[in-house]
Amino acid sequence: MKAYVEMSREELLSLKASLEEEFKTEEAKGLSLNMARGKPGASQLALSMPMLDVINSGSDMKTLLGNDTRNYGDWDGIGECRQMLADMMEVKKDNVIVCGNSSLNIMYDTVARSMIRGVNGSTPWCKLDKVKFLCPVPGYDRHFKITELFGIEMINIPLGEDGPDMDLVEEYVNNDSAVKGIWCVPKYSNPTGITYSDEVVKRFANLHPKAEDFRIFWDNAYCIHHIYDEIQDEIPNILEECEKAGNPDMVYIFASTSKVSFPGSGVSAIATSAANIEYIKQHMTVQIIGHDKINQLRHVRFFKDIDGLKAHMKKHADILRPKFEAVLDMLDSELNGLGIGDWIKPRGGYFISFNAMPGCAKAIVEKCKKLGVVLTGAGATYPYGKDPEDSNIRIAPSFPTPEEMREATKIFTLCVKLATVEKLLGE
Amino acid sequence: MKAYVEMSREELLSLKASLEEEFKTEEAKGLSLNMARGKPGASQLALSMPMLDVINSGSDMKTLLGNDTRNYGDWDGIGECRQMLADMMEVKKDNVIVCGNSSLNIMYDTVARSMIRGVNGSTPWCKLDKVKFLCPVPGYDRHFKITELFGIEMINIPLGEDGPDMDLVEEYVNNDSAVKGIWCVPKYSNPTGITYSDEVVKRFANLHPKAEDFRIFWDNAYCIHHIYDEIQDEIPNILEECEKAGNPDMVYIFASTSKVSFPGSGVSAIATSAANIEYIKQHMTVQIIGHDKINQLRHVRFFKDIDGLKAHMKKHADILRPKFEAVLDMLDSELNGLGIGDWIKPRGGYFISFNAMPGCAKAIVEKCKKLGVVLTGAGATYPYGKDPEDSNIRIAPSFPTPEEMREATKIFTLCVKLATVEKLLGE
Repeated sequence: MKAYVEMSREELLSLKASLEEEFKTEEAKGLSLNMARGKPGASQLALSMPMLDVINSGSDMKTLLGNDTRNYGDWDGIGECRQMLADMMEVKKDNVIVCGNSSLNIMYDTVARSMIRGVNGSTPWCKLDKVKFLCPVPGYDRHFKITELFGIEMINIPLGEDGPDMDLVEEYVNNDSAVKGIWCVPKYSNPTGITYSDEVVKRFANLHPKAEDFRIFWDNAYCIHHIYDEIQDEIPNILEECEKAGNPDMVYIFASTSKVSFPGSGVSAIATSAANIEYIKQHMTVQIIGHDKINQLRHVRFFKDIDGLKAHMKKHADILRPKFEAVLDMLDSELNGLGIGDWIKPRGGYFISFNAMPGCAKAIVEKCKKLGVVLTGAGATYPYGKDPEDSNIRIAPSFPTPEEMREATKIFTLCVKLATVEKLLGE
Repeated sequence: MKAYVEMSREELLSLKASLEEEFKTEEAKGLSLNMARGKPGASQLALSMPMLDVINSGSDMKTLLGNDTRNYGDWDGIGECRQMLADMMEVKKDNVIVCGNSSLNIMYDTVARSMIRGVNGSTPWCKLDKVKFLCPVPGYDRHFKITELFGIEMINIPLGEDGPDMDLVEEYVNNDSAVKGIWCVPKYSNPTGITYSDEVVKRFANLHPKAEDFRIFWDNAYCIHHIYDEIQDEIPNILEECEKAGNPDMVYIFASTSKVSFPGSGVSAIATSAANIEYIKQHMTVQIIGHDKINQLRHVRFFKDIDGLKAHMKKHADILRPKFEAVLDMLDSELNGLGIGDWIKPRGGYFISFNAMPGCAKAIVEKCKKLGVVLTGAGATYPYGKDPEDSNIRIAPSFPTPEEMREATKIFTLCVKLATVEKLLGE
């Protein structure tokens, strides 16, 4: 295997000719494969179908405390569901509010509330000239879309293998009072799959924010979403660490069962300090009388407790692992030694993040599309959809079958090769 | 029966003594009855229990268009549920977005969105010095709480038997650019039970708002919530009327199945013009990936269509009617001719609104509490919880049994009498 950058112009031209031949062959197949979004596949959805039987017309609809889940009440969720999600989020039940079907919606609401009314008594962000958020990149496009919608200025922070560049985070947070938040996916990060190191988590907890209303938006979306039994990432409890560091109110933790039970029909939760909960309560009890408690009951009756959740996640892992491995094996066998891309082998989560040679990502996604393989748009993993290097591509292996993933990844590597050769030839 | 105001001081004192005797007897009983909130009773909840069987592990989970309700997609709701709720709201399917479990939450979101980003391109309301809402009174406390939370100034508009005082509404809306909205419950109004006349609806549609971003918040919460078979109120289609009047974007209509299926586990929707839907879409697709489509499917599979919904509502009416009549009969037999209160006999909805002699409402609620009968706080039906007359009390007859309602209303009338006598005696 010769690295592309070491090839002569002649070698590149000859390589290009053969890749173009291959491209034509693939184009003729008229495939249709989608690696764009982190959607669970059909066999994963099937795992939770028995959940639809546990609540039926013969069920006792009362909570452990005797409240009727069919009627108004329990604005912060039924006790047993709060306990189960607290265990999932590794916090205390008192710190948890169980909400509707979407943790993204809780994040949106949290930013919206800060915009309109401020944070625990601070000036509403919409009254300030400038509000900034730090955005570890590559990151989750839907986070960035929320802050973009609200006109919040986003600042890129490089994300390494152990978390965001904390020197930079500290510099911004501790010195700029316009910096009000940071988006984090601390475990099996979207999209790179990395998990924050203990040191990074502790440095987060020990920030000295210039703005009293600075908050960490800790989206622990993949807290129990391991791919392997034998290696499971763990992170320190950020809420406890913040307390210890004298910053008890600095973090909001978000999670959901969207990729445990059903996307769109799961339950979500926010975990935070007592003071933050009190402030959220002032809003949430005006916003809504209560969330869907029958669905909360359905989840608790089915999963029972954290052990039930974990056992269920092993079944998801068994389905996802071959799909991840199909991608990783193909990337290895097709690209190793060529020096035209790198990626991290994730131990959990929903994505594989690929870094192409700078200036190639858009071209790769374009080429894949021509061959019937849909990828997340290049740049989507950056604020404003702008990857300054035009390098990062997010691969979502969950929806297609392993066989389809192998085929799609083969096509992807072909497009990586061709786009890189064209780049090197200055085309 | 002698009217209280015609009684001499001696007569009042003697009446007071006997009422106080009665009060002591009731106090000794140590009752506990709740007429505070519009909660469906247990027998109403039982009506929808079979809905929990229609979706189970053996169900086809696909929509009519073949989309999997268990996965992401259909941000605006599944087609068949949009159609069913469109029929319920008497609008076209294209004008409907089906959301989560709470129409109140959609209203909150709609105000929040206007605060932060404005209305279809207008200046965000949070950037304006003053934003005002018109509030027909007495009205729904949760509406007023939303506008209060956002610091919006609320202006009382008297609500008559055919709707709000439209002369006043027109004066404000057509001349004051700070007036951005009005809260309306057009059918079986909360709490008076009145329905807007055709003329009132048409005058709404024909407003000439000074503010381009003025909107009518048309909470059609009780659109199919009749109490009688033989008399059912109907109102003109406000969306069509607004279109005809050249104000196509002026109204947002809200509704839900909270009092059709289960409070907290129903489905809700907003209906509005294509231009408004397009603007809402910009936000909603950032706010959430999608609402709970399995619950949408459950509702459609159970109710089937608008006829199924209407047939179901007849069963609710059969349960609610005796409760309303228990209250009305008791009010009639105990208070008629005394000139110490008036009320309207509603033909639908969830409430009976009682107007005491000015200055008596708080005292009545207080006295009821002492006897173990919980009522909505006096003043709750007014913005800021301030009833300038201290007269209006909302009675919610749905939760207790008819027998309990009779007993509670008996106590209520006793407290009305005693409070009024004390008032007349200048105590």
